[in-house]
Amino acid sequence: MDKNFNYSSLKLGIIGGGQLGKIMSQKAKKMGFHVTILDPTVNCPAAQVSDRQIVGGFYDKEKLTQLVKECDVTTFELEHIDTQVLKELYDADYRIFPSPYVMELIQDKYEQKKLLHEKGIPVPKYKNVETKEDLQSFGLPVIQKTKKGGYDGKGVMLLKTKEDLENCIKVESFIEELVDIDKELAIIVARNIEGEIAAYPVVEMLFDERVNICDIVMAPAKIDETLNEKVKEIAIKSIEVLDGVGIFGVELFLTKQGEVFVNEIAPRPHNSGHYTVESCATSQFEQIIRAVTNLPLGSTKLISPSVMVNLLGEEGYEGEPFIEGIHDALEIPELSFHFYGKKETKPFRKMGHITVLDENLNEALKKALKAKDILKIKGSKKI
Amino acid sequence: MDKNFNYSSLKLGIIGGGQLGKIMSQKAKKMGFHVTILDPTVNCPAAQVSDRQIVGGFYDKEKLTQLVKECDVTTFELEHIDTQVLKELYDADYRIFPSPYVMELIQDKYEQKKLLHEKGIPVPKYKNVETKEDLQSFGLPVIQKTKKGGYDGKGVMLLKTKEDLENCIKVESFIEELVDIDKELAIIVARNIEGEIAAYPVVEMLFDERVNICDIVMAPAKIDETLNEKVKEIAIKSIEVLDGVGIFGVELFLTKQGEVFVNEIAPRPHNSGHYTVESCATSQFEQIIRAVTNLPLGSTKLISPSVMVNLLGEEGYEGEPFIEGIHDALEIPELSFHFYGKKETKPFRKMGHITVLDENLNEALKKALKAKDILKIKGSKKI
Repeated sequence: MDKNFNYSSLKLGIIGGGQLGKIMSQKAKKMGFHVTILDPTVNCPAAQVSDRQIVGGFYDKEKLTQLVKECDVTTFELEHIDTQVLKELYDADYRIFPSPYVMELIQDKYEQKKLLHEKGIPVPKYKNVETKEDLQSFGLPVIQKTKKGGYDGKGVMLLKTKEDLENCIKVESFIEELVDIDKELAIIVARNIEGEIAAYPVVEMLFDERVNICDIVMAPAKIDETLNEKVKEIAIKSIEVLDGVGIFGVELFLTKQGEVFVNEIAPRPHNSGHYTVESCATSQFEQIIRAVTNLPLGSTKLISPSVMVNLLGEEGYEGEPFIEGIHDALEIPELSFHFYGKKETKPFRKMGHITVLDENLNEALKKALKAKDILKIKGSKKI
Repeated sequence: MDKNFNYSSLKLGIIGGGQLGKIMSQKAKKMGFHVTILDPTVNCPAAQVSDRQIVGGFYDKEKLTQLVKECDVTTFELEHIDTQVLKELYDADYRIFPSPYVMELIQDKYEQKKLLHEKGIPVPKYKNVETKEDLQSFGLPVIQKTKKGGYDGKGVMLLKTKEDLENCIKVESFIEELVDIDKELAIIVARNIEGEIAAYPVVEMLFDERVNICDIVMAPAKIDETLNEKVKEIAIKSIEVLDGVGIFGVELFLTKQGEVFVNEIAPRPHNSGHYTVESCATSQFEQIIRAVTNLPLGSTKLISPSVMVNLLGEEGYEGEPFIEGIHDALEIPELSFHFYGKKETKPFRKMGHITVLDENLNEALKKALKAKDILKIKGSKKI
């Protein structure tokens, strides 16, 4: 896509049609591009706002090939995809960003950690698990993680007792020292085809401890300027090391001793960057479109502080979603309501989110927590 | 739509599938609503980002009826629609907002002006044209306007000479005194079903004089606080007088003598409110969705000053659009690029727009004018 490319007819492919694909597509459509979604669910959230859907799974070689060949450039909203076929297409000069090689590396959390460690990026102490004895190399308690396939708290286990050791993860895994966490931080980093790089503000994530899903994001994080710069530097170096093109969500631990460790990296728009839609000059969703279509990156400037709260399906409900409290919640000023259009709710399923702006971050948090109390995503069936 | 209504399955209908319908639909989809577009052009801009399109014209009684009956609530992005069939549906308790009665009144610029005048809203001196002599009631020069069907500078004529009088508008029209304009101002006003009302900041419009199309919008207008309040008050009163529900673009003249006159009112999102997408806590496009679905209005707070520039098709080109200068323009920081996805460009056709944010309005204007110089919408055919 050089300067003579006709962007008014640009065809973009997105693998995955959930909320991330949906908002990415909306931003691509804002710029007038043609968008095709590949997803196995007919009428998935992203397909509802796009030109076209190819119905197919993420390991369906034929459909993946069709998508890539019919589009000028293809990107994705999730990393659990068949990389083999994408690598072949990439090697045959089809445009896929981030590259399937980067995707493959990141799919394996152990290899990801190893590369970062080798390149001098601070990560918590970790060790490959080959034998049962390996589990106790750092003593107990310790964190065990699957190498592949984990997300939203799945594939992670805290081993505290001998009994936990018996019930440990049985697939390929590694252990990680339990760090003394003060805050969980995150930062979105964008890098385009030319290597131009841009970091968003550092944010602070709070988790729903019942299921270990990121629940609340405060932008910016309440940390001092030195630490802020350190986190940015580490995150930018991480993406350079990966040679990634697109948007990357870098999750980090800040320990009580003031150390910073990279926890993991997502090679796509990230839940911790939803706030950028309302808060930043260019959202992470527009930024990935710019990055993969060889356009200059947009400004990552924070226009207003904000707090984002995920709307998870209530425990005890499934079926057609019902949004309880929408009238009262939308009374809250500077609140933006997102609902993804998923046909079925399930306990803790990500159904939507809200972002509340306020010049004063504490006020934004107060308003966001009030909305969190009011808004409940119930369902047509009690379970 | 009371508090027990299930908003997760809300079906919204939009009459008209251009850029206004497109962005309205994107905001409705953000909130998870189901959107159907009625438009005669297959795959029009709004249909590309919506669930469904009914292909039909704006005077097609059958298709209008189908849309209204299949949706929980129907709104529109243009006012040149068959109001007769919509009035019948409205009277049969189908939800259509703004009401077709308001739409009908506004369609006739003379009746609109008369009502505002009767209710004490300041408007320029005007007079119905029944005979040729009426044209000269205020002397020359004078403005002649068609009562119905005008938009974007069409249906407006400046009569200066005897010759102009011969070439005057021949359909139903009225004349308006030529006021000594200092600035053309505009303000978006929202009113919901409960009568809650909210005004956006007052903005200043600059026009492309070749075709009298609004070209540049500066938000906020550079006017003092007293005048600002006066404009807001006049605009709010105008919408109350109309008993309108939805979004209204109120255009005003500020004279060199400091008087303020309402020029005209559009009963829909307005070009002068495009800036709200990036600049305000709630965009005009989300606001209309909230207003017509009986949700509370969102905050109209200006988060950042900005300047919006329309991207009009270059003179001398038609056919498939080509965006010249996109790489260089997108280098400009805090610039948001909108391209509508129209398949054909024409001279002066509205093909897209950009919005540039900056804490300093003059800087925003400088950046926007630079982008305007760089970005050219050319076409596949020279004419």
